[in-house]
Amino acid sequence: MRAIRNAERRLVGHALACPFQKESRGYFPVAIKSIVTAAFVIACLHAETGYDAWLRYRPIEGAAMARVRAALPAAIVALGDAEPEVAARGELIQGLRGMTGRTVRAEARIPRESAIVLGTLDELSRAAPQWNLHAQISEDAYWLNTVMDQGTRYIVVTASNPRGVLYGAFALLRKIATAEFANPIDERSTPYAPIRWVNQWDNLDGSIERGYGGRSIFWENQHARADLARVADYGRLLASVGINGCAINNVNANPRLLAPETIPEIARIAAVFRPWGVRVAIAVDFSSPKVLGGLGTFDPLDAGVAAWWKRKADELYRAIPNLAGFVLKADSEGRAGPSTYGRTHADAANVVARALAPHGGLLLYRGFVYDHHMDWRNPKNDRARAAYDNFHNLDGQFDSNVVIQIKNGPIDFQVREPASPLFAGLEKTNQAVELQITQEYVGQARHTVFLVPMWKETLDFDLHAGGAATPVKALAAGKTFHRPAGGFVGVANVGLDENWFGNHLSQANLYGFGRLAWNPDLSSRRIVEEWTRLTFGDNPKVDETVESIQLGSWRTYENYTGPLGLQTLTDITGNHYGVNVEASERNGWGQWHRADEKGVGMDRSTAAGTGYIGQYPPVVARAWESLATCPDDLLLFLHHVPYTYKLHNGKTVIQYLYDSHYQGAEEVAQYAQKWKTLAGLVDERRCREVLAQLEYQAGQAVVWRDAVTEWFHRASGIADALGRVGHYPGRFEAEAMRLDGYRVRDVVPAEDASGGKAVACAAAECSASLKYDGAAGWYTVRVQYFDQRDGVSHYRLRVAGQVIDEWEAALSLPTAKLDSTSSTRRVIRGVALRPGDEIRIEGRPDGGEPAALDYIEIAPENE
Amino acid sequence: MRAIRNAERRLVGHALACPFQKESRGYFPVAIKSIVTAAFVIACLHAETGYDAWLRYRPIEGAAMARVRAALPAAIVALGDAEPEVAARGELIQGLRGMTGRTVRAEARIPRESAIVLGTLDELSRAAPQWNLHAQISEDAYWLNTVMDQGTRYIVVTASNPRGVLYGAFALLRKIATAEFANPIDERSTPYAPIRWVNQWDNLDGSIERGYGGRSIFWENQHARADLARVADYGRLLASVGINGCAINNVNANPRLLAPETIPEIARIAAVFRPWGVRVAIAVDFSSPKVLGGLGTFDPLDAGVAAWWKRKADELYRAIPNLAGFVLKADSEGRAGPSTYGRTHADAANVVARALAPHGGLLLYRGFVYDHHMDWRNPKNDRARAAYDNFHNLDGQFDSNVVIQIKNGPIDFQVREPASPLFAGLEKTNQAVELQITQEYVGQARHTVFLVPMWKETLDFDLHAGGAATPVKALAAGKTFHRPAGGFVGVANVGLDENWFGNHLSQANLYGFGRLAWNPDLSSRRIVEEWTRLTFGDNPKVDETVESIQLGSWRTYENYTGPLGLQTLTDITGNHYGVNVEASERNGWGQWHRADEKGVGMDRSTAAGTGYIGQYPPVVARAWESLATCPDDLLLFLHHVPYTYKLHNGKTVIQYLYDSHYQGAEEVAQYAQKWKTLAGLVDERRCREVLAQLEYQAGQAVVWRDAVTEWFHRASGIADALGRVGHYPGRFEAEAMRLDGYRVRDVVPAEDASGGKAVACAAAECSASLKYDGAAGWYTVRVQYFDQRDGVSHYRLRVAGQVIDEWEAALSLPTAKLDSTSSTRRVIRGVALRPGDEIRIEGRPDGGEPAALDYIEIAPENE
Repeated sequence: MRAIRNAERRLVGHALACPFQKESRGYFPVAIKSIVTAAFVIACLHAETGYDAWLRYRPIEGAAMARVRAALPAAIVALGDAEPEVAARGELIQGLRGMTGRTVRAEARIPRESAIVLGTLDELSRAAPQWNLHAQISEDAYWLNTVMDQGTRYIVVTASNPRGVLYGAFALLRKIATAEFANPIDERSTPYAPIRWVNQWDNLDGSIERGYGGRSIFWENQHARADLARVADYGRLLASVGINGCAINNVNANPRLLAPETIPEIARIAAVFRPWGVRVAIAVDFSSPKVLGGLGTFDPLDAGVAAWWKRKADELYRAIPNLAGFVLKADSEGRAGPSTYGRTHADAANVVARALAPHGGLLLYRGFVYDHHMDWRNPKNDRARAAYDNFHNLDGQFDSNVVIQIKNGPIDFQVREPASPLFAGLEKTNQAVELQITQEYVGQARHTVFLVPMWKETLDFDLHAGGAATPVKALAAGKTFHRPAGGFVGVANVGLDENWFGNHLSQANLYGFGRLAWNPDLSSRRIVEEWTRLTFGDNPKVDETVESIQLGSWRTYENYTGPLGLQTLTDITGNHYGVNVEASERNGWGQWHRADEKGVGMDRSTAAGTGYIGQYPPVVARAWESLATCPDDLLLFLHHVPYTYKLHNGKTVIQYLYDSHYQGAEEVAQYAQKWKTLAGLVDERRCREVLAQLEYQAGQAVVWRDAVTEWFHRASGIADALGRVGHYPGRFEAEAMRLDGYRVRDVVPAEDASGGKAVACAAAECSASLKYDGAAGWYTVRVQYFDQRDGVSHYRLRVAGQVIDEWEAALSLPTAKLDSTSSTRRVIRGVALRPGDEIRIEGRPDGGEPAALDYIEIAPENE
Repeated sequence: MRAIRNAERRLVGHALACPFQKESRGYFPVAIKSIVTAAFVIACLHAETGYDAWLRYRPIEGAAMARVRAALPAAIVALGDAEPEVAARGELIQGLRGMTGRTVRAEARIPRESAIVLGTLDELSRAAPQWNLHAQISEDAYWLNTVMDQGTRYIVVTASNPRGVLYGAFALLRKIATAEFANPIDERSTPYAPIRWVNQWDNLDGSIERGYGGRSIFWENQHARADLARVADYGRLLASVGINGCAINNVNANPRLLAPETIPEIARIAAVFRPWGVRVAIAVDFSSPKVLGGLGTFDPLDAGVAAWWKRKADELYRAIPNLAGFVLKADSEGRAGPSTYGRTHADAANVVARALAPHGGLLLYRGFVYDHHMDWRNPKNDRARAAYDNFHNLDGQFDSNVVIQIKNGPIDFQVREPASPLFAGLEKTNQAVELQITQEYVGQARHTVFLVPMWKETLDFDLHAGGAATPVKALAAGKTFHRPAGGFVGVANVGLDENWFGNHLSQANLYGFGRLAWNPDLSSRRIVEEWTRLTFGDNPKVDETVESIQLGSWRTYENYTGPLGLQTLTDITGNHYGVNVEASERNGWGQWHRADEKGVGMDRSTAAGTGYIGQYPPVVARAWESLATCPDDLLLFLHHVPYTYKLHNGKTVIQYLYDSHYQGAEEVAQYAQKWKTLAGLVDERRCREVLAQLEYQAGQAVVWRDAVTEWFHRASGIADALGRVGHYPGRFEAEAMRLDGYRVRDVVPAEDASGGKAVACAAAECSASLKYDGAAGWYTVRVQYFDQRDGVSHYRLRVAGQVIDEWEAALSLPTAKLDSTSSTRRVIRGVALRPGDEIRIEGRPDGGEPAALDYIEIAPENE
């Protein structure tokens, strides 16, 4: 009896995996609480943590419940015993139980009553030949159908393979949850491309490169984690949106991954993913034959090297027969590659691919290859050219199981980039588009940025690579040039944080990636509507608010971090998070925007610039080459113009830079305001956590706004027509206050702090104070302070001696410096000020953190 | 800076004592969450735990916020520095901050702007003589007033003593929270009686006799707890409803409490209570002079004994100058008393009281004295007579600082008792009424029973002890006979459970006790309306639902546990919790109901019975002596009648017993149903926990219903006119099922289990199964099982092989037996049954718990 099967355990999972255990007090511990969650589903709100993401299966509300109960059968049968079919049955039982409060009957065969029937077409033709169900259904596609048999109605979920049945089950559940279920039903859905993968940049030590949701769910201390429950639940999330592959380690691969002792651990992970139809892929290091295998070389044309790869692949497939393949980053950012031996990327790719081919494995070879020691003084140098320059000439030389994995833009996941010209540059080579779900350059999940609209712009962008329309999605999927493989790869980097991403709203990016990989023709609005309803329920006010925040968030982030194609003006040589306008200049990394006192932008024209525009097919190149037809959004990515240049929208570049940053910051402030109106409509914890995130983001947007506008104001010498830049009503610089123990410090870069300076405490405790001489009234006081990662300083605000607020600088922000990354805002509302009041901030340093201050602002209460 | 003052710490208490620490993940740990709770009050719902009880100070909603903000000053001043005044100022700052999002200014003196001014009348006449505020205000009373001074409006909170100021501050906050605040204001409120105490029956080892909310907040391991934060917060709760004294140890007192090493610990507790105006009292053991002091005797007339008490009192008052006094339980239930030396209770009381008198201390001498070895065969014996018999003759012999503490009824906190005749039997002696807040005989906080209506019946009951009306409240308060002391004592027994009582709704009993002790003329409805609004906010549906549950709950509990004055038919020699109809019979404890095959009830008439009725003043005695005028509710307490006796309401006694038990069980089921409609309107955790409590209670009410009705059916041989008793549609006895490993066991008493039998697992795992042969459909399955305290058994329900539900028997119920206390219900909804299905319960014993089963019931889904 202890050995109950997995599917059964899942069935009662909600009853057993009760999250309330720690709260338990008195007489009603776990068990009776689990009654509430399991046996009385239609009752008090579940305490939401975000763990369930969009697979919450909360009770259907109101009248819809009776309708759904009436429409749904009481029985379910899975005709096959393949793991994904068993998982599909379990998921339907669990989901229907959650949504309707009823446990449908798992039958061994098709019963003589209405039932949900799960099975492949083959299984159906054996079990119910009289239904005569035949169809051409491609791999992974599903068909939801209604069959009448002697007056009995069956809901059939079928496909050509078990994974397709699982996808159909999730689709059926989604329809019920979003109130789109109708009976009878007849719906087929086919994925747009075969490759629908995520990459995890997880290191074997448990860290995740560019991961913002906690440590690895796969690895810890050089081994697969003992408890892989999170991997199973991740597989479930992935399957629910049709993702069928996952690379489980960093593309900057540790050779140890291929060591014999690691392979059983990969197999363990693969087994946990298997019920969910997610195949494991691994990232490999190209020098493995030498550094791991002990050969004298890793030259791809060396026969011993080829044999080593073959033996290694055989060994892997013996342990993991359904391994999806490899991901390979070579000759990029210091990784070993074929250049060591003067070989080509095709040589490198093919030697590995040939080892995988007998097993049906794919090699995803990353197109992200560039020189990061470029001479910035040469105006012809251009990192944006690199992918095309490196791979275009090799088109046709790659084996048929090689797929070039191309980032959406030519640089590196910036907030705004044109579609990579390489999509149009490969006609005889498989390709896949690489999108970044983890928000490396777009707020690192501390900011809400819904990326689907950005991805859609790239995927829908017509590169005019052929006669008919050739949007990037068609090129990447292999449709344009009829390639055997192709598709979508998302860099996900979920972690052990309870909500997977560290930000509830960021979950929408994983959902959206999966939905787009399945069907890139879905609109951003459709995707966000589905996600919101599944994630937050069907309260119209909640849905409208969440959707409007999500849909506007990318443009908003662009507005305050670098519009007009400037890319993100972040610290590109550092944490990729805070603002540092000059970080991209005068170094070899090639993310130059060329801003100086006269103008701004990177001239990539064919006529006078780097020639990058010439990599595009003529229709695109023509439009972009001319300032007259170049879109404003890409202007400074493609051209260098004076600050006074007039945009199509009539504004000068400099005024647009000012305006957009102020607008962006104001938009985030509005997000927080809007969110507050959802109090009582969103469950408590997510309501609080999202509000905390948006309030934090609102503070950061002001830091960005001020830094970027100050920098360009100083560079251009042109005043803001609206008089905002450099003028901050109600702001009092810390360095101008009466300081006791605090010392003035220059902040680098200067634009990262107001006035270029901050004060840091050089004693055990310090204070900064000023005498208030404004009008009596109720005010909001904002304290801009620095929350570094190397300590938890303590702050206190006193007014006329009275403690009004206390807080700690306890965030985990990626800096140990006084800069825009650590610059953080505390907003204290409802403060009564009177003329003559002393306003005093008291700071107590901790660790390396000196309780530093930038400024305070005093604003009328309702501002 | 570390040494910030208490009042200030309280001010920012919400920001620092953030309950979300454990949830923290990712970037937004404690600090940013505390922003949400402190700096942005008007936003997402606070996660409620019940800890704050009715002092939540949540933001005022909607339009009322602007109104309150406009009406309230921005400044506050406390004119005196007495601890309760400083606490009052801190409470107002905290409360207004919570409710309005604004921090009012603590000024050192009356400012030249609108302010809240706190101070005694003396302080006011010194600080603002021009206001000319004079009034006769008695101790602890408060006066909320508005003063205009040169066009400036001041809200004055004044009193004759600092504690009164504190009470005024809480009253002002309550008015704001319940939307009853108006400016200008002029309101005086005077407490009904000087003694407004709670007793805690806490043992020095940390256990609490009859405590249902966890272990002691005062004691642990023979010492005062190191962390007394809970005591401070308890003091705050007590002060908020005007309670001014607390006895901090069990009336069954440990002599060690008076040991020299314990006294500093009492002083520590007293210091923590002091800001809240709560004076500590202690329960003492009468044999202390001998067992602790080493004297040869504790004879109250011995001079050495008197001197010992005097020295001990002096020692105590040196350490605790504001000690309220002693509580003494003597010659009761095995406690030492004056009878050892043939002395009277007056002798005993006076020797102790005289030691306290010089310090102004009171002795609360318990009237709960009776013989628990009475011969049950003597029809004249009657425990109900005991208090009157023991104390009436001593009237006038007690010193003026002695107060006889009299339980509301003559027995012991049963669900229904007449008012004790002793209230009318003492004219020259101080008295206080003892009410039990902890629910010893009324569900032990596992059942919701709001006791204010019960207390009101006693307090408002006119004993006709004099010419004018003499309700119990007036007698107890000393008003009727103009006694110097008198009042109200509540046995509270709160514990370390986060919500103090183990049941959120039980908090209303402490609130109600305090409000009644202040003003017993308040209606039950008024009290529950205040409490509900403060505790759950001002949603009309929530308020109406909570109020209707609370107001009906006492009668409901009576309905299913023993109506018509039967008292509670509980296991009175055991845990006082489960049902055991015969437990009260044939033993010396004297709670006899004399039920046999012919009739039921205790003849306490003067004419033929015990003469108890004759202890009452003539008007009352006359009414009760006659069956014609005896109220139905007390019938069986006062008279023995045949089962066929017709009540005033026209029903026979036996049919009323049947009907009331079915009605009571149905009422609790409705409570749970009603509560479910509050999903989304009540915060998540309290919504879940109250629902769990009500669902559990609904199951227990069925156990009671069945046991009592079965017992009387068997005794009387009279059938239920509605055919319910003994007939349970859809019920299948476990002992009649196919058993694998389970063994049939007799349950004692037989009425505690359906059919008198249960099955207990005698193997590692067992199963009980049956073949379902009803109609196909959706059903609710109820499993009645036994959850004992000595193990956590595991259960599983399978239908046709499929696991439908799993749960654990993990409650903490006070029994290790198969009986009505352990009998527990699991309700599994949404089960699809088909003819021929095997329904199987699988049980896995644990510890001493044999995974026992009583029966299952199959009911249509919507029943």
